[in-house]
Amino acid sequence: MAYRETDKMRQRKAEARQNILKCTAQCVAENGFQSARITTIAKLAGVATGTIYRHFESREELFAEIFRLATQREVNKVAEALAIEGNAVERLNNALQHFARRALKGPTQAWALIAEPVDPKVEEERLLYRKAYANLFEEIIQEGIAEGSIPDQDARITSTCLVGAISESLVGPLSPAQTASLPTTKTDQDALINTIVRYCVRGLTGTRS
Amino acid sequence: MAYRETDKMRQRKAEARQNILKCTAQCVAENGFQSARITTIAKLAGVATGTIYRHFESREELFAEIFRLATQREVNKVAEALAIEGNAVERLNNALQHFARRALKGPTQAWALIAEPVDPKVEEERLLYRKAYANLFEEIIQEGIAEGSIPDQDARITSTCLVGAISESLVGPLSPAQTASLPTTKTDQDALINTIVRYCVRGLTGTRS
Repeated sequence: MAYRETDKMRQRKAEARQNILKCTAQCVAENGFQSARITTIAKLAGVATGTIYRHFESREELFAEIFRLATQREVNKVAEALAIEGNAVERLNNALQHFARRALKGPTQAWALIAEPVDPKVEEERLLYRKAYANLFEEIIQEGIAEGSIPDQDARITSTCLVGAISESLVGPLSPAQTASLPTTKTDQDALINTIVRYCVRGLTGTRS
Repeated sequence: MAYRETDKMRQRKAEARQNILKCTAQCVAENGFQSARITTIAKLAGVATGTIYRHFESREELFAEIFRLATQREVNKVAEALAIEGNAVERLNNALQHFARRALKGPTQAWALIAEPVDPKVEEERLLYRKAYANLFEEIIQEGIAEGSIPDQDARITSTCLVGAISESLVGPLSPAQTASLPTTKTDQDALINTIVRYCVRGLTGTRS
């Protein structure tokens, strides 16, 4: 009997943790990290603030976990978008388009993940995840070089150029301080995305496509 | 007499502040922000830690000031390197080469300025200064479009792609966690810099130079 109870408790604890994560993710997606207060999250989750600290050592730990979960989802989306039929340039184009489009669709969340000034713990996660994106891009650039769709180059380095170019160029439009620059019509969004993706791919291929 | 004393006191205060800034800059250049402890800075400056807090509200305030001073110097260097004779592409090439070369020459300081996970206050300064670099690049891209050395494009957007590409691609080599990837010979440094600058300029011009 004691064993079963422990089992049940463990499950309850996992569910409570899951619920806190879900509510935090919602807060961050709506307002970013800085505005996500523990009291707000606790209210949303229907628990006392103390309960949150029983599951997460600190606000920073909770945010780092949220960052990892949300960013891993984006990394997976990029990996999926790279897996379409076509040559490396076409697949890369598709992945970059997807990445930018998803960011413009959820601008607050994208801003929080890409550039919002947050705690050093989240910054450290950011560096790790930029590396994860770069690894995906490095692989596809290598494939492009092998098949001849991309000229020979140091793919490890240019993959990081690519990560920097696409994320930094989205920072301005996504920034809450510059909401005016976030395009709202489909035409304007397409123009922004096309400009960014063209730069990113041109940097690799050196052709005016 | 009272007026003169106040004047002298003001001067002494300014000198003490200057001295603290100089010592902090030295600490950051040698070990980055995270390792720069107030006690170390105080010892180096020959003052009590309390004295530092009489000049700066907090460690974060002091760091933000150091960040501004050091980054403004780099922004000025880029502006200077853009001011050489030549067309826009040549001047941009020169500025990017300079920027990357200076970073590799002072890797710890460059890492601290570009990517070291620090307090949100410094992160906010980072966003502002990336904008300062982008403004310089936007201007030169516009000039290139006007003179015909760069094809027509949305210079406001591609200037931010450029800022992202050059800074992100230096993050890996500069990172203390990956010291192995920091090239030490002139040949290897040149190769790294050329790869980065080629990507950055190709993204704008779409030609394999």
